[in-house]
Amino acid sequence: MERDIFQSSANLLKGNIWVEALFGLEKENIRVDKSGKLAQTLHPKVFGNKLKHPYITTDFSESQIEMITPPLPDIKEAIGFLETIHDIVSLELKDEYLWPQSIPPILPDEKDIPIAQYEDDGRKDQEYREFLAQKYGSKNQLFSGIHFNLSFSDKLLEILYHKLNPALSFDEFKDEAYLKTTRQIMRLRWLYILLYGNSPVVDSSLELHCKLAPYTIDKNVIALSIRNSCYGYQNIVELFPDYSSVKHYQESIEQMVKEGKLKAPKELYSSVRPKFIQSPDHISYIELRFIDIDPLTKAGITEESLSFLHALALYGLLSGESDNFDATDQALANKYHGGVALYGLNTSPCYFDDNGKSINIWIKAKTVIKGITDLFQKLEINQVGYQTALQEAKNMIANPKQRKIYQLLEGILEKGYIPYHLDKAHQYLTISRQKNYNFIGLEDMELSTQLLLREAVRRGVSFEIIDRKENFVRLDKNENVQYVKQATKTSLDNYASILAMENKLVTKKILEEHGIRVPKGSDYSSAEIAKADFILFQGKPVVIKPNQTNYGIGITIIKENNDESTFCRAIDIAFANDSTILIEEFIEGKEFRIFVINDEVVGILHRVPANVTGDGLSSIRELVQNKNMDPLRGKGYHTPLEKIQSGEAEAMFLHTQNKDFDYIPALLETVFLRENSNISTGGDSIDFTDDIPDSYKQIAIKAAKALNVKITGLDMIIPDYTKEASDMNYAIIELNFNPAIHIHCHPFKGENRKLNEKLMDALGYSK
Amino acid sequence: MERDIFQSSANLLKGNIWVEALFGLEKENIRVDKSGKLAQTLHPKVFGNKLKHPYITTDFSESQIEMITPPLPDIKEAIGFLETIHDIVSLELKDEYLWPQSIPPILPDEKDIPIAQYEDDGRKDQEYREFLAQKYGSKNQLFSGIHFNLSFSDKLLEILYHKLNPALSFDEFKDEAYLKTTRQIMRLRWLYILLYGNSPVVDSSLELHCKLAPYTIDKNVIALSIRNSCYGYQNIVELFPDYSSVKHYQESIEQMVKEGKLKAPKELYSSVRPKFIQSPDHISYIELRFIDIDPLTKAGITEESLSFLHALALYGLLSGESDNFDATDQALANKYHGGVALYGLNTSPCYFDDNGKSINIWIKAKTVIKGITDLFQKLEINQVGYQTALQEAKNMIANPKQRKIYQLLEGILEKGYIPYHLDKAHQYLTISRQKNYNFIGLEDMELSTQLLLREAVRRGVSFEIIDRKENFVRLDKNENVQYVKQATKTSLDNYASILAMENKLVTKKILEEHGIRVPKGSDYSSAEIAKADFILFQGKPVVIKPNQTNYGIGITIIKENNDESTFCRAIDIAFANDSTILIEEFIEGKEFRIFVINDEVVGILHRVPANVTGDGLSSIRELVQNKNMDPLRGKGYHTPLEKIQSGEAEAMFLHTQNKDFDYIPALLETVFLRENSNISTGGDSIDFTDDIPDSYKQIAIKAAKALNVKITGLDMIIPDYTKEASDMNYAIIELNFNPAIHIHCHPFKGENRKLNEKLMDALGYSK
Repeated sequence: MERDIFQSSANLLKGNIWVEALFGLEKENIRVDKSGKLAQTLHPKVFGNKLKHPYITTDFSESQIEMITPPLPDIKEAIGFLETIHDIVSLELKDEYLWPQSIPPILPDEKDIPIAQYEDDGRKDQEYREFLAQKYGSKNQLFSGIHFNLSFSDKLLEILYHKLNPALSFDEFKDEAYLKTTRQIMRLRWLYILLYGNSPVVDSSLELHCKLAPYTIDKNVIALSIRNSCYGYQNIVELFPDYSSVKHYQESIEQMVKEGKLKAPKELYSSVRPKFIQSPDHISYIELRFIDIDPLTKAGITEESLSFLHALALYGLLSGESDNFDATDQALANKYHGGVALYGLNTSPCYFDDNGKSINIWIKAKTVIKGITDLFQKLEINQVGYQTALQEAKNMIANPKQRKIYQLLEGILEKGYIPYHLDKAHQYLTISRQKNYNFIGLEDMELSTQLLLREAVRRGVSFEIIDRKENFVRLDKNENVQYVKQATKTSLDNYASILAMENKLVTKKILEEHGIRVPKGSDYSSAEIAKADFILFQGKPVVIKPNQTNYGIGITIIKENNDESTFCRAIDIAFANDSTILIEEFIEGKEFRIFVINDEVVGILHRVPANVTGDGLSSIRELVQNKNMDPLRGKGYHTPLEKIQSGEAEAMFLHTQNKDFDYIPALLETVFLRENSNISTGGDSIDFTDDIPDSYKQIAIKAAKALNVKITGLDMIIPDYTKEASDMNYAIIELNFNPAIHIHCHPFKGENRKLNEKLMDALGYSK
Repeated sequence: MERDIFQSSANLLKGNIWVEALFGLEKENIRVDKSGKLAQTLHPKVFGNKLKHPYITTDFSESQIEMITPPLPDIKEAIGFLETIHDIVSLELKDEYLWPQSIPPILPDEKDIPIAQYEDDGRKDQEYREFLAQKYGSKNQLFSGIHFNLSFSDKLLEILYHKLNPALSFDEFKDEAYLKTTRQIMRLRWLYILLYGNSPVVDSSLELHCKLAPYTIDKNVIALSIRNSCYGYQNIVELFPDYSSVKHYQESIEQMVKEGKLKAPKELYSSVRPKFIQSPDHISYIELRFIDIDPLTKAGITEESLSFLHALALYGLLSGESDNFDATDQALANKYHGGVALYGLNTSPCYFDDNGKSINIWIKAKTVIKGITDLFQKLEINQVGYQTALQEAKNMIANPKQRKIYQLLEGILEKGYIPYHLDKAHQYLTISRQKNYNFIGLEDMELSTQLLLREAVRRGVSFEIIDRKENFVRLDKNENVQYVKQATKTSLDNYASILAMENKLVTKKILEEHGIRVPKGSDYSSAEIAKADFILFQGKPVVIKPNQTNYGIGITIIKENNDESTFCRAIDIAFANDSTILIEEFIEGKEFRIFVINDEVVGILHRVPANVTGDGLSSIRELVQNKNMDPLRGKGYHTPLEKIQSGEAEAMFLHTQNKDFDYIPALLETVFLRENSNISTGGDSIDFTDDIPDSYKQIAIKAAKALNVKITGLDMIIPDYTKEASDMNYAIIELNFNPAIHIHCHPFKGENRKLNEKLMDALGYSK
């Protein structure tokens, strides 16, 4: 074919650049009550204006939540984002679930299906939905699914453009690529449905009508994908746009609107839609609309199935086209699509009439999958996800009962359609509640940032990760753009205050100037002079530390300062880490982290070394195992708390107490496994926000004001927090300009202080 | 003596801790016109309110400028601060000089001496001056001098307090120390005058009266220190405060006021004043008031003389007292003081009647200096300044003509009193004008900070150096407190903007978003992927650089990018410096540093590699020597420009041009000695502020606004600055959040853009 300039590209370029792309997902989930009935409640108010929320809105029905991810460079990340939206929505529902199936739950009468409500500038959207209800019936509108937005990376297209050097502009070249891919996926979509169709049965409250199907089918429909079949949601008349060029495509749809076949272009329910976003004349990406929700996963979609789809798209782009894709060709493709959706559940040979030829769909499937596998081998794509997807596809074709729909059907047959899906929904909600601190797909980022981004999603604040390793994000809502690094480095604070906090010497000077107690001491830039001051500190407990560090490195505490050589050694250690050191009085007492935002104390935390508390029966080993079951505990800072180790350090510390891991602590006996209270070595975070008298909070606020700082985590020593603060019974050790928030949100003991919400408030993003 | 608890201290403590102290200076200088007459102009308006300016005010006369340093921990720093104030004042005077002599210049009639003018709340100060004019005569008030404020370090006193463990509170202990030191310096001050007296003759316009002196003296006075003699400025009646305790001291002075001998305590012109600042009941420091201005130095005072005074004070504290210092004892001390001032110029033996004994002042001087020297040896003080001062004192006693006053007298005899001092004044002004970029005593700090602090002094903004190595200062005027680090890190900028500037990736994204041209390119976190993109950059000039660096490290420019291995090597080099790298198009053109403050372009600079321009006669070697004479050029970043080196690198670069240092460039031929344009290797800074079209400035402002940044130094490439900016003929390379200001203030070519003034404006400190 003249226009097929892409076929030769496979020879020109190799490697994973081929699978660089952007992936976006949209998913609809019906809200149901605890009995599986369509919810009659309003869309959760917390998600605000449906027309403006970038991630969470409604589709046709007020009860049909639609979740939207931005385009993301990784399939896993896109699914993670979708799952996180799913989590966030789930946590806001009261006595409701998200229905994990494309086929609707128990539906009321047509008239009782609530159409999505809009105010003011949303009137048109509501009117359009009312028109749809009229034309297609409201029940029909409640088929839900997943849309997959796919764009090849610009860089891939640029390189191809350079290599192929076609007589086209780059934009035209892109259009050709996307149109060819669209046609090819339209031809091949049956294969995806054959493998991943997932909507087999309906509740009796849904009346099925099949307007186009030449086939007949039992009243008790059991099919591969009812949603993709003639019983699903389709245009009333079969429509055939012209996919030969962008111009023809747009004109053909305009013609349908003119002829009254469609009220608007968006009423065309094609399986693949080219999308015109950056420009009205050129395609930005394509939207694949034939994906059923996978009830066996919380996200409703798997990496495997999307990788397969992406592979299918690439294969389509690079392989030859079998026909012109005119109306006849499209009708045939639709026949494959609808036929597989209805009959593809069969595992026996299944024949289609393909322009007079009788085609066994399983043989054809095998051929296509081999074609894709060969192509990927040739392109030298070695990303595991694609390899796995292709291997799984091969397995499913070889053994069709390996398809997930058989697991689903088994469950449905055992428990019934509604109870089975309710069970799943409940199970997913439990997980959403347990792992409510992370942003799936962004687990490599700091927990504080993940929490902030969760709250951004909740509030409808768009975000972009500008520098992932640096945890640098851009937030945007209603023209309020904020750049935030590591959750707490924001525009709220001025640079001078940050620099003051960064420098202990400066911090102390400013606090002292404002009459706030800090450990008394001096700074030194000469070890000789520091050592000579032993006489001034003799007999007093001291801390000797470098001026500028944040990680406890080079700090020595000497509680009984009577040995000059120990004192001098500590000075040398501190000087090994900085050219200026501080010698300060050591103040005995509990250390509290006080989090201040905009002159308000929003959280107070105390950290306790790794420990277990006995039940009189279990050994320390067992108690540790038990405590480590907490979903808040993990490894490598991906959770708010770390698992307690049973290593050498712990064994040694137990040994100093004449204990070992087999020791059985008495009931309520607490045994410490570490001396240091770091969370990173299994320590516990205990919320004290409501326990610390206001007098200390006022001092913390005064300190934050003294440094003119809006976000800070102060470390305050309090010898006895049951007593009100006086001038002498506290000391501020330092102010941290990048305090973690997750420890306050998910402490071991105490309530979630929701600092991510407080930060978003402070940044000017209202709920 | 019972109260003398200090004598044993010399055995208890050793080392330089003994000379830790705070030193403050106050200096009066008469403003004179070019003929040496007292100026009749007003105090320069730029210095604002006389009552509020912490550094620059007036004394008795409107023409008598008083300069005040804060207490500083180092004598050199205090003198440097004083000299810098002197420089700043000098540069503001039009056709006037600062009179470098304690004895007044040519005076008009009494009634024409302008008394300092005050407004509003300064009325009382003016009235007091009018009273003084009445009582003592205005001419008499014009004796000028230096006051030396001295406090021992708190730490020294604390250690002594601990070691001596006296039955006193610490405050009482301090009072005792300062009172003893006061009495001792009163007894010993004659020795300082003997060595450093510096006011030998008067102009005939000054009528001398001596009310107390028992001696007679010629009309043609030539004395050691007229100012310290009975002809100087003294109380009309000799007054004897009670120095035995703080209480007695204060009561005795109150009694004098009650008796009408004084209008206020401040009218008591004693040579040493205990000062009560932090508390009304305890002494904070002592003020030594008998120091003549040294006409042979710009600052008017030398390190040597102040070190000697400090040594004298310590000696006084630690040695035994010879009497009770009652009125008789004081009268005797005054006799020594006044006598040495009048007759100390003599180099022959000079006897005083000391309670009936005849004492040779030179022998006595020798004894005291030996006492001090022995003490310092015992105390193990090894600071060079004190050793030098004591050695010099010894030399002067051995050879009295080595005293500086003999140099002064020689000059006066040669040129005349007025012309000699006018010459000196002119000479000092020339130096002030030449070295107008640094803050003397703070030369270890960055030039940008020195310039900012000079402007702080000019505007009467108090400053404190909080962390000297970090160039971290605190500014304060009228309750506007600002913390500033490295001159341009201020509270004006928010932290998020700083972080965005710090990260090239983020900077570029934000600029692109705002339609500002940046070099096109991509960021990579994988070397493999970066290398694979060779095809995208092939044949195009590129820059390959680490994402986060500021010093040009790891950057490679490839102008003809046709060799893949060179490209790959550059990628490896960049990755060796950061985990994220950028590959960008290289844009040919001149690079300009554009300085933006508060959305205004305040300076544009272009840097040119080290070069000389021929005169047709001189060799490159000679031209370099000549160019290096510029006082703006120095070594080690203490000057706005660096000297051009004649090293291997320069020789090699000349060699590539077939030249060497002996080559004689033609008239106006420019020869470059370096390829790189860094100022640090002798490059020239050329001001282009008025040459760059406004269209580029608007782009710079737009870029600063895009990042929401108030202070920034943008680097912009402009291929042809004679053309107006279009969308395509420029590119912004980066925004620097800590741009140097001194290069714009003191460029090689072009005018001073006064960025230190602009910064102070921006920080809210009006003139």
